[in-house]
Amino acid sequence: MTTGSNSGEVLGMDWSKQPGESEISSTLSDFEDRPVVDSSPFIVVHGAGSFGHFQASKSGVHKGGLYQPLVKAGFVATRISVTKLNLEIVRALAREGIPSIGMSPFSCGWSTRERNIASADLSAVAKAIESGLVPVLHGDAVLDDLLDCTILSGDVIISHLAAHLKPEYVVFLTDVSGVYDRPPSDPNAVLLREIAVAKDGSWSIEKPTFQNKNKQVETSVAAHDTTGGMLTKISEAAAIAKLGIDVYIVKAATSHALKAFSGELKDNLPDDWLGTAIRFSNK
Amino acid sequence: MTTGSNSGEVLGMDWSKQPGESEISSTLSDFEDRPVVDSSPFIVVHGAGSFGHFQASKSGVHKGGLYQPLVKAGFVATRISVTKLNLEIVRALAREGIPSIGMSPFSCGWSTRERNIASADLSAVAKAIESGLVPVLHGDAVLDDLLDCTILSGDVIISHLAAHLKPEYVVFLTDVSGVYDRPPSDPNAVLLREIAVAKDGSWSIEKPTFQNKNKQVETSVAAHDTTGGMLTKISEAAAIAKLGIDVYIVKAATSHALKAFSGELKDNLPDDWLGTAIRFSNK
Repeated sequence: MTTGSNSGEVLGMDWSKQPGESEISSTLSDFEDRPVVDSSPFIVVHGAGSFGHFQASKSGVHKGGLYQPLVKAGFVATRISVTKLNLEIVRALAREGIPSIGMSPFSCGWSTRERNIASADLSAVAKAIESGLVPVLHGDAVLDDLLDCTILSGDVIISHLAAHLKPEYVVFLTDVSGVYDRPPSDPNAVLLREIAVAKDGSWSIEKPTFQNKNKQVETSVAAHDTTGGMLTKISEAAAIAKLGIDVYIVKAATSHALKAFSGELKDNLPDDWLGTAIRFSNK
Repeated sequence: MTTGSNSGEVLGMDWSKQPGESEISSTLSDFEDRPVVDSSPFIVVHGAGSFGHFQASKSGVHKGGLYQPLVKAGFVATRISVTKLNLEIVRALAREGIPSIGMSPFSCGWSTRERNIASADLSAVAKAIESGLVPVLHGDAVLDDLLDCTILSGDVIISHLAAHLKPEYVVFLTDVSGVYDRPPSDPNAVLLREIAVAKDGSWSIEKPTFQNKNKQVETSVAAHDTTGGMLTKISEAAAIAKLGIDVYIVKAATSHALKAFSGELKDNLPDDWLGTAIRFSNK
């Protein structure tokens, strides 16, 4: 991405009315001589965050049973909440001149079988990328072959996209600096800067060096999170790294995140980089 | 539909926060003993209205050329506007207890070839209906095999759905009572209550009886409408009627619209019915 903070110069792409505006605020001739943001092709995937987890967990959508009125209502409520968040993210990107296009897994016809992806045709996503658009996907309530319905998490979607579209690298943006050896709220928590993933999918901490080589990582999962929290992120990230695709887990809106997006971490991790790199290791 | 105005009793399905609310307003236990709206399966399709036509027409999205910055921006802006409208319609239906699910043609992977549908897999829509959900589709900006991109109108979508899913009948809701012999703003305009469609697709006015049997219908198309206005509606309706599926064009939110939805017009049009029925005629 090469956007920076130049939203005043690029061709903004959200022309819908903002609250309080009575008319479209710009004339189109304002746009014609503005550059379009230029970047390598990429895909954005977001979770539901506070927009969907409440609806999903309280009604048990992730456990299935769509024939039950409460689950059906929760399914509808979850989709409303996540598509609302998706629209806000698409609009925020469009305002910065990124040609973002919301694509919902449910609408894409994706379905699961006991929460694993059963069918997820990527041709519409691939065609959007070929057309120079930036697909914005999200964790979603979907139909499940065995459970009737469930929640497909954004992390599982990323894994699936990575396996089939083979990106150069994957960046997970979070609200903490990366993966710690214990919950980051613990003052003694240590940031794991590099994790190596072996052929068999097992993973070990490369940096920093701990005395105990087989150190365990303690994680916590928020009670409202129906899709697994940090532990799911690590195991999905390890599955991606096993394919030879570097994964960076990094805090959003930091210089470290920008470095991860630029691709410059591929060959070396600078000493001052704060984040977790998860990489395949042949050793 | 059997909804009426019983939104206080049915299981509301929009649990997202309303503007000004700081917390989810109901507890889930409130919902558990409420009935779910029961109805025959149906699909909702809406156009873009004032939400998308401005964006589409000003930038020329319907004429293609996605490689041009202005068209690309218009494409993104159009999709934002129509998905915003779709979300509002899904939420309004969900609040009335209808298990509505937004499905965007672009996300469904539908594409056109010179504005006609080239590929539109209906399996995701069919699966949603089988699961007891109500798909809510909309006119959308889509990729076109020859033009790069164009606008797929809601009317063309309805035609395609009708041809493949064979509903009992199709209802077009508009802001006027039906099809008139000239623009309804003209004080001499006469409502055409019944139009017969022949095997060859040609159509003639059955009711009321005009002296001139080959009477022409004058229509106007709003300048901002990229997809054809009433003339497109009539010809899409005639194409549906030719399949033996009755089409009713009727004013939204009236007792006439309710009659059309109920299916009771299938065998006879009451004398006091205001609307246009378009039907296949073997004569």
